Parts: sequence; structure tokens; C-alpha cells
Amino acid sequence: VSTWWGGRVVAQDDCSLTDDRGLLLGDGLFETALVLDGVAPILPRHLARLGASATKLGIRLPAALGAEIGRALPELFAAEGRPNRAALRITVTRGRGRGLAAPSGPGALVVSLSALPEMPRGAPAPPVSAVVLDGPRVDPLDPLAGHKTLSAMPRVHARRLAVERGADVALLATVDGDVCEADAANLLLVVDSTVVTAPLDRGVLPGITRARCLDALQRGAMPAQERVLTARDLLSCGEAFLTSSLDGVRPLSELDGRPLQAPGRVATALAASLLV
Amino acid sequence: VSTWWGGRVVAQDDCSLTDDRGLLLGDGLFETALVLDGVAPILPRHLARLGASATKLGIRLPAALGAEIGRALPELFAAEGRPNRAALRITVTRGRGRGLAAPSGPGALVVSLSALPEMPRGAPAPPVSAVVLDGPRVDPLDPLAGHKTLSAMPRVHARRLAVERGADVALLATVDGDVCEADAANLLLVVDSTVVTAPLDRGVLPGITRARCLDALQRGAMPAQERVLTARDLLSCGEAFLTSSLDGVRPLSELDGRPLQAPGRVATALAASLLV
Repeated sequence: VSTWWGGRVVAQDDCSLTDDRGLLLGDGLFETALVLDGVAPILPRHLARLGASATKLGIRLPAALGAEIGRALPELFAAEGRPNRAALRITVTRGRGRGLAAPSGPGALVVSLSALPEMPRGAPAPPVSAVVLDGPRVDPLDPLAGHKTLSAMPRVHARRLAVERGADVALLATVDGDVCEADAANLLLVVDSTVVTAPLDRGVLPGITRARCLDALQRGAMPAQERVLTARDLLSCGEAFLTSSLDGVRPLSELDGRPLQAPGRVATALAASLLV
Repeated sequence: VSTWWGGRVVAQDDCSLTDDRGLLLGDGLFETALVLDGVAPILPRHLARLGASATKLGIRLPAALGAEIGRALPELFAAEGRPNRAALRITVTRGRGRGLAAPSGPGALVVSLSALPEMPRGAPAPPVSAVVLDGPRVDPLDPLAGHKTLSAMPRVHARRLAVERGADVALLATVDGDVCEADAANLLLVVDSTVVTAPLDRGVLPGITRARCLDALQRGAMPAQERVLTARDLLSCGEAFLTSSLDGVRPLSELDGRPLQAPGRVATALAASLLV
């Protein structure tokens, strides 16, 4: 193969990623972990999820992945100017090669750290507004649903459509008509004093913050339920919030045009519970 | 942002693609054109399709894209050793940047040329076997369906599942249960002496070779129909073949375990009609 990039024919080792399946086919996985004062406290859970997805989808992770990330993090932290809060992005690909047929070699690893704005710890993130989209839809039977693949353009498109409609984020419906998650976060609602969220078999990401919130609710003896979210739930919930590793708990101030209290009581309590 | 790649922290201009949305989010488009003796005869149609998708999906193509590819092709042809047959892969991304919110800058362009094995011109490609998968499924209402996006991991996974089942390629069903296309090609069947293929509103790629075949059938006054493909069509077709830019017409020797004549009369005639 010969490759043109940046206005000239490049040698393969000038930029090996031009030939990588991550770029050519979105063929790989990623994780984004929160880094506080140079430490990524939840990183082991991100690596466990990455490992499970890689096994399921037949991606050979680089040898000693955890050790390499352990070497990378302090160097990146110094290079980035020791930010208080930062996002650690781990990108792994299936390796080099063209065509759908998968190569056998190990994939590429790119790790990056981006400084994030400071935020009070233990408090909910600033609220955002959300709209439910007709599409792109999630297929609960899709073998790739629930995995953080590099083929994330449907999520980029969903966000664009939401912004076109004047909202901040998109909520996604499944092909069966229920609402399952946000474009880059899990969705939790408070309905009749119970916290409800879509079960994993609706094609949602097994979010780490989602799981931590469900654990915290159980410990606090607060009713929580994993069940299919209906249109009625969206219309009747008293509180709604998103959960993700970078944002923690982020309340919705508006859902399909209906104003909501943000943050509500449950979101505030859960945000406090996430303090490690 | 600070980035670790290849075992060290890299300066951004060492390899700008580490920060590109094509790699990070599969956020971009591609085309693959056939190059014969250094010439890509159908390239204008590929660029037209790329332009239409970019407009629809809000991707700003690099300025003077056609002119740059025109400069790249002869240089790549020479670098690749002047192969008789080759694949020209054009990859464009939405640009740099993290997070779902789209940046406004123009995207990256990577063009590559890969030599292909010689094949007799005007003849069908060697036959392959195919199986219909339960999933990944195509959602005809997906705003990204029918576009050649870089988020192609569902197709990679479909091919893996087909190979696991002993076949060469996968045929994809929609969420409504009809069969629409192959993992990397359009699907045409001969049913009761009529060539049938799924209409574009079933979420299939508007394939250039598909369109050329439909044109050739019309010119030859041979019955052809765009209509939903049913399970009965798959069970009763006398001939089945795939169409794509690189392969032209590729007959199926087996469909879900049922042997088929390969190549059949129609595939042979259509392959001959594609000679420019």
C-alpha cells in the first residue's frame, strides 16, 4: 500500500495510523476515565470493561496494556501541566490492514490526557437540556450495542440533531420505541419516588457511574429499578439526570421542552455519594 | 491535550491523526474506487457520492478535494509500482477534536492506493458463499444508513460472524426482517427471470456498480425491480450476486447453505456490460 497524507506520499512509519483500522473502519474500542490530581481512581473498572468488550468482539489488546497506561499517565500528567481534573482517553484498535477481514496482529494504542475545567467535587455537574430523537436508534439485539466502539459517528450525528433542535444533548430511542440512554451517558429518571434506568439488555452502555449510582441507592435503601423506560416515564418523572465518568451526575433542566428541577434531591445526593 | 503513542509522549505534529475524529470517533466518510492502469474511470461518481454524504452529514470536505486526489493518484501509482489493478481509498474526517460536539474546521484527508490481484476484465469475480445474519441489523430509518461512514465496525463484526459460520460474506437483515445488502456490497437476486434488489429506502448503500447494473438491464430491456427482498426471494432465486466497485459483479455460489449456479447467465452478462 502507498499512502498520501498531508499533501505528499508518506513512508509508512511517518504516520502508521494512516493504515490503522481504527481510522479506516472505526474498528476498535475506547474508554474515558476521570483523572483527579494525577490519579485515575476508577481506571481498573474501565480496563475491566475494555477487556470484556475486547474478548467479546475479538480484539487482541496490546500486551501489558495496564502497565503501559501506568507508565503513560504520569508522563502525560506532567506534559499537560498537572491539571486538577483531566480526561484520560484510551483508544485501542484492531490493528493495521484494509478490508473487513480482521488481521491477527495486536492493535494500536493511543492514550491522551486533556485538562478539564475545575468543578466542585461531590456536587452535580451543571444542568443541560435534552430532547428525544427519532433516530439514530439503538438496536438492543445489535451485538455491538453496549460496547464503547470507535464507530461512534451515530452518536456524533445524534448530538448534532439535538443541537439543531435547540437542546444540549440527545436521548436515544431503541428500534422498539423505548428510550434507553443519552448520546454519551446513561439516563436515570425519578418516577414516583423510584429511580429507574433502562436495563443493560436494552442496548445501553454498562456505565461505571450508572453502576456506582445503583450501588449507592441500594446501600441507602432508596428504591431503584432497572426496567424499560416508557414515554409516560419521560412525561411524569420529577427528576432526570445523566451519569458518565467525566461528568459524574449531570441533571437535566429540560426534557423535550418540559422544565425539570435541576439539580433535584436525588441527583444531589448521588453526586455526593460518588466522592471516592 | 497531551498524547502517548508508540510508547512515548508525542508532539502533536509527530502524528496529527492521534487527535483526529476519524480515529477517535469513526467520524468521517470514505470511498473506494477501482484503478485500472493508473486511471480511476468511475472516480467522479465516487466524489459525487462523497460530496452528497458530506453535505447531508455536515462534514466540511477539504478545499479542492478533487484536485488534490488528481495530484495524489499519479504519485501513488508510481510509488505502488504501477499495478494493473488497484484500489484507491479516499478517507475524509470531520477534523480534530474530542467530544461529540463537532468542530468547525475542515477535516483530514488520507488517500491510499493498494495493488490488487489481476483479474480478467469483463468477467464476474470468483464466487463466494454467503449467510444471512440475525445481527448486526440495518435500520432503514437511521440517518446514517446508506452513507459510507468510517464507523464501519458493525460490518467488520458481521464479516467475522459469517466466517465463524463457515461462509465468506454476510448478508444483512433490516430491523424489519427483510434482507437488504451484503456486508460490503449490494445484493442482487434473479427471481422468476427478474433481477430484484432492495430499494435505497431500505437503508442500503447507493452503490455505483448497483446503479450501473440497473442501467445496463434497462438498456438491455431485461426486467429489473427495486423492491423489498423477502425470505421467499432468498429461497427461490436462481442466481444471486454482489456488486461493488472493486469486485464488479461477484456471484454467490451458496446462500444459507443452498448451492447456486455461479456465475449464472445474468451475472456473466452484467460483468461484461461493466467494461467501460
